[in-house]
Amino acid sequence: MIVKSTDFKVFLVFALIISIFIFLLVGCEVKIEGDVGDMLPSWNDGAAKQTIINFVKEVTDKNNPNFVNPADRVATFDNDGTLWAEKPLYFQIYFLLQQIKDQAAKHPEWRDQQPFKAVLEDDRETMKSFQVSDILKLGLAGHSGMSQEEFETAAINFITTAKHPEKNVLFTDLVYHPMLELLDYLRENEFKVFIVSGGGIDFIRAFSEDIYGISKENVIGTAIQTDFVSEDGKSYLKRFPMLVPPIDDKQGKPVNLHRFIGRRPILAGGNSDGDIQMLQYTDDREGPALCLLLHHDDADREWAYDQESKVGHLDKGLDEAKNRGWTVVSMKNDFKQVFP
Amino acid sequence: MIVKSTDFKVFLVFALIISIFIFLLVGCEVKIEGDVGDMLPSWNDGAAKQTIINFVKEVTDKNNPNFVNPADRVATFDNDGTLWAEKPLYFQIYFLLQQIKDQAAKHPEWRDQQPFKAVLEDDRETMKSFQVSDILKLGLAGHSGMSQEEFETAAINFITTAKHPEKNVLFTDLVYHPMLELLDYLRENEFKVFIVSGGGIDFIRAFSEDIYGISKENVIGTAIQTDFVSEDGKSYLKRFPMLVPPIDDKQGKPVNLHRFIGRRPILAGGNSDGDIQMLQYTDDREGPALCLLLHHDDADREWAYDQESKVGHLDKGLDEAKNRGWTVVSMKNDFKQVFP
Repeated sequence: MIVKSTDFKVFLVFALIISIFIFLLVGCEVKIEGDVGDMLPSWNDGAAKQTIINFVKEVTDKNNPNFVNPADRVATFDNDGTLWAEKPLYFQIYFLLQQIKDQAAKHPEWRDQQPFKAVLEDDRETMKSFQVSDILKLGLAGHSGMSQEEFETAAINFITTAKHPEKNVLFTDLVYHPMLELLDYLRENEFKVFIVSGGGIDFIRAFSEDIYGISKENVIGTAIQTDFVSEDGKSYLKRFPMLVPPIDDKQGKPVNLHRFIGRRPILAGGNSDGDIQMLQYTDDREGPALCLLLHHDDADREWAYDQESKVGHLDKGLDEAKNRGWTVVSMKNDFKQVFP
Repeated sequence: MIVKSTDFKVFLVFALIISIFIFLLVGCEVKIEGDVGDMLPSWNDGAAKQTIINFVKEVTDKNNPNFVNPADRVATFDNDGTLWAEKPLYFQIYFLLQQIKDQAAKHPEWRDQQPFKAVLEDDRETMKSFQVSDILKLGLAGHSGMSQEEFETAAINFITTAKHPEKNVLFTDLVYHPMLELLDYLRENEFKVFIVSGGGIDFIRAFSEDIYGISKENVIGTAIQTDFVSEDGKSYLKRFPMLVPPIDDKQGKPVNLHRFIGRRPILAGGNSDGDIQMLQYTDDREGPALCLLLHHDDADREWAYDQESKVGHLDKGLDEAKNRGWTVVSMKNDFKQVFP
């Protein structure tokens, strides 16, 4: 032993030096994290990635005139076609068809009633001609009649087992990896990240925490009415077949997001004409804003569609992006990798 | 120098020992924090305080069968009469009367129309006979016709300047100090704290962050409809005189809180019969739950009221608390200090 046990001063000096060392290390790590551009490694270098990074740097830099307080750093994203794929049909529709089949025994009348009959008979030709009103009818019937907890259990069961009809993987395997990185990057920079989807709020909540790291209370979507029921000393919410207006699409997006969040986003991302109003509402806030529009132009790795597509219809959104200088993200050019 | 500069091993051993020492210290500090009962110094020692502390200890202790994951640690509180006072009238009503006066010039017809006439003429006798329908009529008229941003500005202006008619202090000086401590204590233990109020969601949001440390997106209340308006290249949400159903009271509380949050609370606090359903819904979850009912029984320091009062009416709630074993918090006995 070369250190005298009595020499406590030396011990203290060492303790001090090493403490400083450790604190410097911790300090550096934090600083390095804040500076790392490459929290977005699966984005190709290009205008879109650079615009995102520049925006985040500006709004988080106290010395920048565009600095935004963390409380105001709200980012809202559409879900279908923005965070995960939406082809050949919105994924929730497959869940809905499953729910109709699961509940058919309780509804013998469905065997002779369209649109239910086609679903129960797997009549693809009739199903191809379904209008929005048919889907809505199926949605209200299939997604109601149970408690919130029962619905959640069914949704979790579907999302953890059912496979995509073409890709033969779980639907949650078709989230966009670059978008997951973007969500992490924003949260790392003290953004509060929300989903604002035309899809069902309770369906998305069944997987948003596990898949996106977005907690249930940060999910906004189209909702079904519920009734508070108290019987036999137990209470629950029963879903009944009526929508809560407005549908969370187009004008409904800014209306609902403000109702839930109470302030305008400073960053919003979408991919279809249904997202235009949310992006306008973001763009028109006082102070800095970033609007992202994801363009599905990669038929090889995903799907390529815009004006001609019913699902994820994108037409006026591209004009509006051009006029207002929104950032169009090309899946083909800006995504180094598409799926995880 | 008694340490040889070449003896790097000794340096490493020291580094190790001191690192362990520091980590132990940090670890202890965290542990000590978790154990501190007195994050609630303005609560008197007694059953209520002890029940709260025991509950929080159990749900945050990984080794306890009642452990609850942080994601599920949702706490919801009523506002009027639970977080701040509500006498002689709900404070929002004073704001509403101010708004009616401020907008009277734009509505000459109000001069001859009740209930507006009485407000504009400060006719206290007529105002005393107002029914809920009169207040609703005033509320819809006074709180609509402007953008969300204009409403927020008016609410902030009111809340930072107007005085309580009897106490002659800002309304926000009449928050309950023990409840502020409780909110902090819960957040310190990774609870997500929400307001679920019959009052106006956008009114409460104007001060919830500053006064309660509750961010706007964690405020749920009765909402007014809005329309998305886009004109001259600028977009905003215009408030129009219609409520978003349901009113956030009684059965409406569990319905709305689940719509916003997506899960049942594990802790809920209220003070009137309007909170019964929220407390039932909390109590009836799978797993541990704590329900608090604040009883206004301190005429000296605040106000004393329950069955006989229109504002903050509490009657069946006391029976339900007794039957279900909810924790009744007596303002007189459990609050060491009432206001900040």
